[in-house]
Amino acid sequence: MESQELLSLCRRRGFLWPAYDIYGGLAGFYDYGPLGASLKHNIEAHWRRLYVFDEGLQELVCPLIAPEPVFKASGHLDAFADMYVECKGCGESHRADHLAEGLVDNPEAISEEELGRILDEKAVKCPLCKGDLTAPRRFNLMFKTAIGAGSAKPGYMRPETAQGMFVNFSQIYRHGREKLPVGAVQLGRAFRNEISPRQGLVRLREFHQMEAEIFFHPERKTWPRYDGVKSHVLPLAPNGAAVTDMSLEDAVASKTIINEALAYFMWLTYRFALDIGLNPKRIRFRQHERNEMAHYAADCWDLEAETAYGWVELVGIADRGCYDVQAHLRHSGADLTAFERFEQPREITREVISPRFDVMGKLFKGDTKALAEKLIEMAPDAVRGKDEVAIEVNGDSFTVPSSCYEIIDRTEKASGEKFVPHVIEPSYGVDRILYAVLEHAYSMKDEYVTLSLEGLVAPFKAGVFPLMSRDGLDEVAQELHESLMSNGIAAHYDESGSIGRRYARMDEVGTPCCVTVDYRTMEDGTVTLRNRDTKEQVRLSRNEVVETVRKIAEGTHRSPSDALDGMKVV
Amino acid sequence: MESQELLSLCRRRGFLWPAYDIYGGLAGFYDYGPLGASLKHNIEAHWRRLYVFDEGLQELVCPLIAPEPVFKASGHLDAFADMYVECKGCGESHRADHLAEGLVDNPEAISEEELGRILDEKAVKCPLCKGDLTAPRRFNLMFKTAIGAGSAKPGYMRPETAQGMFVNFSQIYRHGREKLPVGAVQLGRAFRNEISPRQGLVRLREFHQMEAEIFFHPERKTWPRYDGVKSHVLPLAPNGAAVTDMSLEDAVASKTIINEALAYFMWLTYRFALDIGLNPKRIRFRQHERNEMAHYAADCWDLEAETAYGWVELVGIADRGCYDVQAHLRHSGADLTAFERFEQPREITREVISPRFDVMGKLFKGDTKALAEKLIEMAPDAVRGKDEVAIEVNGDSFTVPSSCYEIIDRTEKASGEKFVPHVIEPSYGVDRILYAVLEHAYSMKDEYVTLSLEGLVAPFKAGVFPLMSRDGLDEVAQELHESLMSNGIAAHYDESGSIGRRYARMDEVGTPCCVTVDYRTMEDGTVTLRNRDTKEQVRLSRNEVVETVRKIAEGTHRSPSDALDGMKVV
Repeated sequence: MESQELLSLCRRRGFLWPAYDIYGGLAGFYDYGPLGASLKHNIEAHWRRLYVFDEGLQELVCPLIAPEPVFKASGHLDAFADMYVECKGCGESHRADHLAEGLVDNPEAISEEELGRILDEKAVKCPLCKGDLTAPRRFNLMFKTAIGAGSAKPGYMRPETAQGMFVNFSQIYRHGREKLPVGAVQLGRAFRNEISPRQGLVRLREFHQMEAEIFFHPERKTWPRYDGVKSHVLPLAPNGAAVTDMSLEDAVASKTIINEALAYFMWLTYRFALDIGLNPKRIRFRQHERNEMAHYAADCWDLEAETAYGWVELVGIADRGCYDVQAHLRHSGADLTAFERFEQPREITREVISPRFDVMGKLFKGDTKALAEKLIEMAPDAVRGKDEVAIEVNGDSFTVPSSCYEIIDRTEKASGEKFVPHVIEPSYGVDRILYAVLEHAYSMKDEYVTLSLEGLVAPFKAGVFPLMSRDGLDEVAQELHESLMSNGIAAHYDESGSIGRRYARMDEVGTPCCVTVDYRTMEDGTVTLRNRDTKEQVRLSRNEVVETVRKIAEGTHRSPSDALDGMKVV
Repeated sequence: MESQELLSLCRRRGFLWPAYDIYGGLAGFYDYGPLGASLKHNIEAHWRRLYVFDEGLQELVCPLIAPEPVFKASGHLDAFADMYVECKGCGESHRADHLAEGLVDNPEAISEEELGRILDEKAVKCPLCKGDLTAPRRFNLMFKTAIGAGSAKPGYMRPETAQGMFVNFSQIYRHGREKLPVGAVQLGRAFRNEISPRQGLVRLREFHQMEAEIFFHPERKTWPRYDGVKSHVLPLAPNGAAVTDMSLEDAVASKTIINEALAYFMWLTYRFALDIGLNPKRIRFRQHERNEMAHYAADCWDLEAETAYGWVELVGIADRGCYDVQAHLRHSGADLTAFERFEQPREITREVISPRFDVMGKLFKGDTKALAEKLIEMAPDAVRGKDEVAIEVNGDSFTVPSSCYEIIDRTEKASGEKFVPHVIEPSYGVDRILYAVLEHAYSMKDEYVTLSLEGLVAPFKAGVFPLMSRDGLDEVAQELHESLMSNGIAAHYDESGSIGRRYARMDEVGTPCCVTVDYRTMEDGTVTLRNRDTKEQVRLSRNEVVETVRKIAEGTHRSPSDALDGMKVV
């Protein structure tokens, strides 16, 4: 199918449309209409149910604007950039690496100068107007702003929700009563100032993420529920190879997947994908090859879905080592470590910062004691290799040169040890997932569209119609509609047009069933229930409608154990 | 009480804390921790239940970044500004009008020059360091950014969610099958680059809104459910007067509230406030006085709550006339009108744009026909008073001078008429509401805090404890905990510390009840259920726990009709 057919249905029926069209539109921005907002809400609610309710992770809601030091530490300020060229004719900007595709092996990985030389050599022109292009320039993809009036601070719209969890590690750890593993999630917006956004919902400048950051002891990367699911099978495409079905335990034993925790969150992702109605024949896990993975990542897998745009990454699940927490520890000087108590006290040797009181005394006089105390509290990694360190005491700022302290090994009887936790990160792109769900649900027969959405995510769980809008049929149907709604079940009441047209309108927006009140209802209290996918109708008592539709609304995989059963046969 | 005590509890127990504290903090930004995120989620879910499920309004999700024309039309670009001064000593920025309070009658309403003269005259200094101040400057409160690489477009973080609904009026109207009233809602972030944010959650630079925009025929501002609630009583402080209890119908009849629709949404706001646990003795509706209301607004009421910061606006409910839709119609040229069919066709006279083909022919030659067709489609208000109008035809842009057309009256037999809809806007500030809910729920006795949160919004609906973590008590308690969770009821399992300490921990975070498994449970299958507010305990069968806690979780006012009953006695 073409994405255009689906996107036109989406606009017509109020799922989604390009934003700001009365002002000529703005590339990379979409509006969700009432049906799209509901579908998105249902996808997010199920994710929250799995990650927060079932797995016990802590939900945070952090700001979208962050100050510069956060992205200095995370690496986004220096490295989150693409190269672009502008057309001297029409003024349009293009991704320079995209224009060089096929001309050089790895256009993303070479320098501006090198890329400029290649585009020049091959006389590459503007793909829109054949005009000449400027030399490639590097462009940071964060939206920048300024915080405050007057001498404002630079701020950036977050490019991912993740940093909010990393900077709050100590809060998360404390709230989890200082035990590992512990994890947090965020659902919300993120921003990338794409140079030339295309492909509808797949490449947006403003998008929605659901991310989890789960913190582990470096040597114990497993998850309490792993044993219950390890025999389940996932479709894995490891390290450039074709897809093969493999159980979690075989994948971990053969080192195809690096550890049990990563395998578990891949399983949870797969389960989520099936629950919300992605087609199991059109999804796969593709492992990142060594050269596409960040240098600090130990292993990374993408859940990909087949769509009109090709295979598209919906979810990335990575073992990021200690990179993120370590980076914030080093830049902020805060003690972002976890502590593990030994069963028996042990002699251990660890690095500590040792103030040189003789040097400090001369420099800082009466402030020496307070400054030394602050130094001792700091993590050695926060000062290592620096010429000086800034310390605040009682509201005054001091610059303490490295001659004032040394990093020494200290051996002592310890009841436990401090360490920087490792992170496993499942990162979900909501808009892409929603698009893939729509595409996998879409079918057309005789110019008649059906969206076979799962009950769990469908915007309406039922259509409710009177066969005729008279003779009291309408009143009974309205009562049924209200009893569904007051039970929290989204239903759509419709009395206009032929009954066939009303069924068709509901099929087109993915409503799993329709309830019709007819003349027999007035005699025996039964109504018809029509199944969207089989088009079959059954009669049932009007008193059974709420419970029947509730089951449909809860989806096929209601409880974790149902889901396990469902997955064994995949 | 002091807000500090509550905010310190909030940080300690994971409700919320100032953001980015490992980097020294950032004024005006907060993080919600797991309990705060849950409380916020529950407040939003109830609002969605009332506005989307019960009232049938359409939920939209629009981008946070918008291009400049949107805010040119809305007036924010020109008028959404405060005046600030900077301290020449410490560099801190201050609101200039705040410094002039008490020195002049209405410091917000005077010019920069006038304000500068007054501050000078009275020798006002920096409140922090007594340093000299710069002259006042005007500062637009929108966060600005740039969209795209190279020749980027200016963009702004939305200062309210409302504009997304106004620019999408045609989509909303069509989705509502072209009938009025019709309405849309948005829940989400908004941004104001406050000059000097203080007061914790009450004045944030990044905050959360829940807004509804309901579109009416200008002469029919009522709501289908109005009659069912018109005898209910609201605490009204009209036009500077003291609070008096008045029924909706009396308020409308005496023109205290301008129309039935506005009265209905004030009622809905009051109901919402009681449902989520605001103290009826500490909330009131205060009417805007004529000089504080926007010039286009016909009437405006704030729901205010008494807090440690004084009486704080939580919700604003305004009749905004046709201002918003009209502004976007005029700036975009799009036909943002509604159409009402007459019962009988009528002769009506209306303004239309009439192209002057003689003038146009000379200027535009072969493009005249296409341009004239576009002109005829435009709304007269979109061109009135302009010297020229920009029109696009087949991808080419033309500037058509006003000599090419005239606005004339045309009388014709019409089946109906077009008009710009009027808007009633209930606008809720989530963070302030959440703060007021916490404050109204807070009480301290003997250094022991209880948060008496409504079950509907409480982060945990129940604590579940084994009396001892042995002899199988812990297993039974864990099973109970899981059966609550798998029914979607948030519960907290705790087996550490004395039972008294565990109760206290739950009281402190507002958990309405605690279920304890003791030795008698093993004999007769009963558990204790303790009430947070009365501290009373009852025994019930463990099989009744899920349904009992579910009722508590649904709150006192479960269905609309229960809520009505509850409100009659207020």
